[in-house]
Amino acid sequence: MSPFATLATTITHEDIQKAVARGHGPNETPVLTLSAESRVKGYQSICLPLTTANWRERWKNMCIMPSTGDGGNEEVIAAEKEAEAWRKSPSFLLDEVTMTRLDEAEIVVAMASQWLQLDATDDWVRHDSGVALRQEVAYASYLNIPTVILPPPRNRSHVASYGRIVNDCLKNVPYMQFSVRLPIYDPAVFQPKESPLLKSDGDLSSSGASTPPSSSPNILIPGSSPPRSLRSSKAPEGELNATWEMWDVIRTLCDYNPRLTLTLDLTPPLPANAGVLNRWAAEPVQHIFLPASAFIANVKGYPVLPKGTQAFIRQSMIHRPTFILSGATSGLHAMGGESAYAQYVKHLEKSSPIVQAAKTNGTVEYFAQGYQDYLQNPLQPLMDNLQSITYQTFEQDPVKYRNYEEAIYRALLDWPDRERIVICVAGAGRGPLVARSLKAIEKSGRQVFVYALEKNPNAFVTLQARKTREWGSSVELIFGDMRRIDIPEPVDILVTELLGSFGDNELSPECLDGAVRFLKPDGISIPASYTAHLAPLSSSKLYNAARENKDLKSMETPYVVMFQNVKVLSGDSGGTGKRCGPKIQECWEFEHPRKDVTVDEKGLPLTNSHNVRSARLCFHIPHAGVMHGLAGYFEAVLYDDVGLSIHPHHKDYISEDMLSWFPLFFPFRDPLYLPSNSELQVSIWRLTNDRQVWYEWFAESFLPVASVPPPSEQGEDMSGPDASFFSCTSTHFAVPSPVIDAIDVFPLTEPRPRQASSDSATASSGVVKIGQTSLHNAGGRSSWIGL
Amino acid sequence: MSPFATLATTITHEDIQKAVARGHGPNETPVLTLSAESRVKGYQSICLPLTTANWRERWKNMCIMPSTGDGGNEEVIAAEKEAEAWRKSPSFLLDEVTMTRLDEAEIVVAMASQWLQLDATDDWVRHDSGVALRQEVAYASYLNIPTVILPPPRNRSHVASYGRIVNDCLKNVPYMQFSVRLPIYDPAVFQPKESPLLKSDGDLSSSGASTPPSSSPNILIPGSSPPRSLRSSKAPEGELNATWEMWDVIRTLCDYNPRLTLTLDLTPPLPANAGVLNRWAAEPVQHIFLPASAFIANVKGYPVLPKGTQAFIRQSMIHRPTFILSGATSGLHAMGGESAYAQYVKHLEKSSPIVQAAKTNGTVEYFAQGYQDYLQNPLQPLMDNLQSITYQTFEQDPVKYRNYEEAIYRALLDWPDRERIVICVAGAGRGPLVARSLKAIEKSGRQVFVYALEKNPNAFVTLQARKTREWGSSVELIFGDMRRIDIPEPVDILVTELLGSFGDNELSPECLDGAVRFLKPDGISIPASYTAHLAPLSSSKLYNAARENKDLKSMETPYVVMFQNVKVLSGDSGGTGKRCGPKIQECWEFEHPRKDVTVDEKGLPLTNSHNVRSARLCFHIPHAGVMHGLAGYFEAVLYDDVGLSIHPHHKDYISEDMLSWFPLFFPFRDPLYLPSNSELQVSIWRLTNDRQVWYEWFAESFLPVASVPPPSEQGEDMSGPDASFFSCTSTHFAVPSPVIDAIDVFPLTEPRPRQASSDSATASSGVVKIGQTSLHNAGGRSSWIGL
Repeated sequence: MSPFATLATTITHEDIQKAVARGHGPNETPVLTLSAESRVKGYQSICLPLTTANWRERWKNMCIMPSTGDGGNEEVIAAEKEAEAWRKSPSFLLDEVTMTRLDEAEIVVAMASQWLQLDATDDWVRHDSGVALRQEVAYASYLNIPTVILPPPRNRSHVASYGRIVNDCLKNVPYMQFSVRLPIYDPAVFQPKESPLLKSDGDLSSSGASTPPSSSPNILIPGSSPPRSLRSSKAPEGELNATWEMWDVIRTLCDYNPRLTLTLDLTPPLPANAGVLNRWAAEPVQHIFLPASAFIANVKGYPVLPKGTQAFIRQSMIHRPTFILSGATSGLHAMGGESAYAQYVKHLEKSSPIVQAAKTNGTVEYFAQGYQDYLQNPLQPLMDNLQSITYQTFEQDPVKYRNYEEAIYRALLDWPDRERIVICVAGAGRGPLVARSLKAIEKSGRQVFVYALEKNPNAFVTLQARKTREWGSSVELIFGDMRRIDIPEPVDILVTELLGSFGDNELSPECLDGAVRFLKPDGISIPASYTAHLAPLSSSKLYNAARENKDLKSMETPYVVMFQNVKVLSGDSGGTGKRCGPKIQECWEFEHPRKDVTVDEKGLPLTNSHNVRSARLCFHIPHAGVMHGLAGYFEAVLYDDVGLSIHPHHKDYISEDMLSWFPLFFPFRDPLYLPSNSELQVSIWRLTNDRQVWYEWFAESFLPVASVPPPSEQGEDMSGPDASFFSCTSTHFAVPSPVIDAIDVFPLTEPRPRQASSDSATASSGVVKIGQTSLHNAGGRSSWIGL
Repeated sequence: MSPFATLATTITHEDIQKAVARGHGPNETPVLTLSAESRVKGYQSICLPLTTANWRERWKNMCIMPSTGDGGNEEVIAAEKEAEAWRKSPSFLLDEVTMTRLDEAEIVVAMASQWLQLDATDDWVRHDSGVALRQEVAYASYLNIPTVILPPPRNRSHVASYGRIVNDCLKNVPYMQFSVRLPIYDPAVFQPKESPLLKSDGDLSSSGASTPPSSSPNILIPGSSPPRSLRSSKAPEGELNATWEMWDVIRTLCDYNPRLTLTLDLTPPLPANAGVLNRWAAEPVQHIFLPASAFIANVKGYPVLPKGTQAFIRQSMIHRPTFILSGATSGLHAMGGESAYAQYVKHLEKSSPIVQAAKTNGTVEYFAQGYQDYLQNPLQPLMDNLQSITYQTFEQDPVKYRNYEEAIYRALLDWPDRERIVICVAGAGRGPLVARSLKAIEKSGRQVFVYALEKNPNAFVTLQARKTREWGSSVELIFGDMRRIDIPEPVDILVTELLGSFGDNELSPECLDGAVRFLKPDGISIPASYTAHLAPLSSSKLYNAARENKDLKSMETPYVVMFQNVKVLSGDSGGTGKRCGPKIQECWEFEHPRKDVTVDEKGLPLTNSHNVRSARLCFHIPHAGVMHGLAGYFEAVLYDDVGLSIHPHHKDYISEDMLSWFPLFFPFRDPLYLPSNSELQVSIWRLTNDRQVWYEWFAESFLPVASVPPPSEQGEDMSGPDASFFSCTSTHFAVPSPVIDAIDVFPLTEPRPRQASSDSATASSGVVKIGQTSLHNAGGRSSWIGL
């Protein structure tokens, strides 16, 4: 397995000067020497400033006027002439760049001049910073450097200009990766009053590439005293939102270009609020900038990271990031030397739960290697006849069939002892449920006969082989579609495995409408019921994956995905006026057998109306984020308290390590921005006509605002007639599932009455609408599966 | 000229029954008789319910269970069986529809059953209302009825389901227009507690098509007493927002389908707040439902409308709506009889300022007939050589050339008397400015020589013809591009007409950079300066027009448009913390001659950097709306206080009835929802490279929220060095234009210091970001014009 973390080290101007002083061979250069040394030390790449202090000096002299003009007007005119000549054809002098040769740049991650102010308030500084960036990027491209780290955005007011310039670079340089360096705190807090460009202190150009061995964040100007807030160990959430908000503006302006990534700067202080840190899970983090100053010394004097940072680093392994270590040679920590920092990161990699899960045979993470965030079209086993290899993959699931066997066993035990019992496995495939039924029968000691139905003619050959070799006369095979054929006698227990990632999305309800004909009036179905669950999801990776296929339809179809680079945006409770439910909410339920459906003389439903469903769910969004889609999960009751679940909060109690289902991803065509403390109303429909079943989905966002009547409370129309007749009304205030009752550990899915809100200012106020998506799968007719 | 208003009358079930009672010929039917009578009375169409009370009765019996079941379980089962049979193949019985023949339907606007609840809270009522609507629409389609009026949405909570069903109908029936009936108040206020479907009162089905002669709004259930709020004459704004919000959800779910229109229901009470009513100007209003009960009696007893309604109806003529009159035969008013209502509407049409302007020769509205809301690509006179017919169209402008002549005249008078004056008309075209210069010279009595430059070889022939015939030796013609050629002597006054709708968008700054070489050091340019102005715009019509061309590029280009079906979303002042400027805001300015540009030996600028501009504007949005683009205007100072302006607030003072420029429309690819009292930050850039000039634009929305630090105040980075050096910094706090000084009537464009806000609750609070657009014209390279 490839490593999750790669390591890079920073090379500063001082390092280069020292290498010059040491001398080198005729075909060597200082950068080549440092590069080779770094490789020997185990670093895969080096992070190097592209330009020198000379460049900064020339740029400053051309583009920034001295505040007290010594030379008067003539000097100004001369500088402006030089600037215009430069703007006309921007180019470097030899001593303004750190590298000149292709071999020097081979393992380099280049830092563009970190003192550039692409978002300066001053129009000319902004303009000339943009010209300089384009020049630097063009030079990096000439040297075939694959990745350039951009200077951090510093100014929320003009961050749109930053984003626009980066977008311009992305369009002009076709292959290069651009990585926005972003401290995980709000740089505005550390805003000096004076432009760093006016400082003559040459240190700045090198400090842009490495963190000086002090506790001050490295975008600070050396010499200026850090503001008071710097000394506090936690950054307030508002500031962290502002940092992320700048990133969001930049990548939005760059239209989610996949070549635009993040370099998270972990220079202290790091925030302690995990909810805020988690948002980076949904973003394209390529590098993590980790200065020696972020480390503390343990009792033995070795460098270690604070607990919160450890957890964040372990979690960040999902990005398979490059850690850019800086200041490792500065001797900041008494013990361990330079290699201690790298060793510690490797230690965090090994002890990361994500890495460990991926290395442990039997886990979903192990099983799903290479499938993370990969969009798959859901199987259509009703329309398509599956391949044997597909059956084989899913038969490997140890948990699913164990639970089926347990459910069948318990159902048999609950049956009156005196009777001969008839089981029908409908949709037997290659026979795993038949085999499990026989095991359960054996264990139960009951007298049971098994019918096995299958419509796939190819799988039916395998079934015949197994009957001949294994099952003998205890099983009768029947070839045909459960919605159309008849079986020789009424059935007591109907066993099916027709569930999809969203429960009903592989048409289990429609198929079972046909198969329940076989059941005796008091017969039971395994599964007895199943529910579909949703949560709002942020993931720039999935957004890009879904729209990669330029076809609009690709944004109108749900996908099966093993989530990794994602964040669920909803919070576990909260919101104004108790409107919002939990983090993940139930959409609807299907129960089998269902007795209230009007059927024809053959026992088949007259229409599929009873399988129409709809849900309106209200989610609380605690931290600002961008919604790119919905995560879909299912949960099923097989029998009694035996179930199957891929619901993130329940699965480990109900069916831990079950492999058969990844969640569903319902994409949105256009990202929807959701502010902190907002509410999201999701509407989803399961629709049907004579031939097809499909979903449509839509969302609106709201924000609590004082003195507005709550719209979702008012406006309810005349409540319908006696609701007891409408037995199929969908609601997420569902009766607790027996699975949940039986375990009684995790929270119930329906919203619990909350304590009086501590935020009395908004508790009594309403919400105003602030945004919406378009309707998805509006085409409808082009449904994803045929009945 | 075609009429702005057309008239329709409603036909009720009672009208049909009366017609039946009167009898008719063998080939006639009651509907044909009523149809013919309506035509004789001058109505162009009739508005008729599609279904009868029998249909409602059957639907109710099938789909709604009696709350107290008399027949018990068997009756329920029988009804459910019937309902399932109906759902399987929905069809009408003869006595359930009002029409059966094509000729009956010829001039009909059909009303779908207004008692259908597509947004009912009950899942089954919603489902079966959808089935019924599809059935009715299919029947209307069979009869070739072009337009169906849908029942009003009633339930904000489930309005997404309403929209989804309508979208389904739009997809299934390819040609039909669907018009959503919408009262201009919040129906939630009038929400009865009980379902109207449970009432046995048969009046409802007919009242859906006509307003009973009472003051209660016609979606009220007869017999239920109207709530107290009904009696107040004004609906509060929150409710009006909610009504519009429902419409917005519906049309968004229908993806702005151009076949989806509005039927505004003017049943009282009508709101008095014009700001709220104006939002309908940007929506596709097809019908206005006007019941006799909306009329009051004047002193003579004739029906007239209240002042506010009059103004609204006059304004609504921009939609060229069909007025659906109802209850005109009910004798509600003592005088005038049935025809009085139609005559009154015709009177309002004639006295509408929109209709009058369109009929008055010399107005922009008269000139622009047929060009309203029509997207035109801006002229590119620098890249293309214009046709003679294009010159001729623009030479017809009586105002523009009058002002140029006045400006030249004043400039001549201000010149020292003793000197010979040299004028250069650069870009002379077919010579209109040469002719005006000669007039001004004659009037001034000065000794002046005129050079006329033109680069269009075809127009240059016309210039030669005019010199030969009219101008003689007082004018010397020079053929060539003003950016490249030289003229024989230095010039005192440089006259150009290079302005576009946005001022600089036809590259006037770049052309003048070349032409100012001719000017003496103290020479003057006419125009002396010009400014670009923006405002956020809502218009579903322009949105659809811009995306009609499926090419993504069509959403990345500004268009020239004569606005009509639009609404400017910004307010004249307001917003939190004084962040917001006025309704229409200045982006930037260009001044000529500009002395601070660094030039080469030929006098040409080394780069075009000095013509780069950018602006960040903050708009206050008083009423919720959807932004589809930006409106762009220009204003120019020709000389002294003589100017040109298409700024809506200034144009009538500066250059009334000037025809040459329609505003510019900068489209947004995706509509941006803006809540009431929100703030909109617009970023716009004028960009340039060696060969091209283009614009890019982007917007973010914010909402004031208590206890959040204002992000647009914080985060300002280090203020640049001495700002006086950066003479070209763009800002909308510009020096007031001399044009404005001279007139001193209308408000200045820069924000004035406001009085202490009356809303102290929000005055000290900040804003949170709630949305954003993507970056437009991000392509950049594919600019709209070559240098």
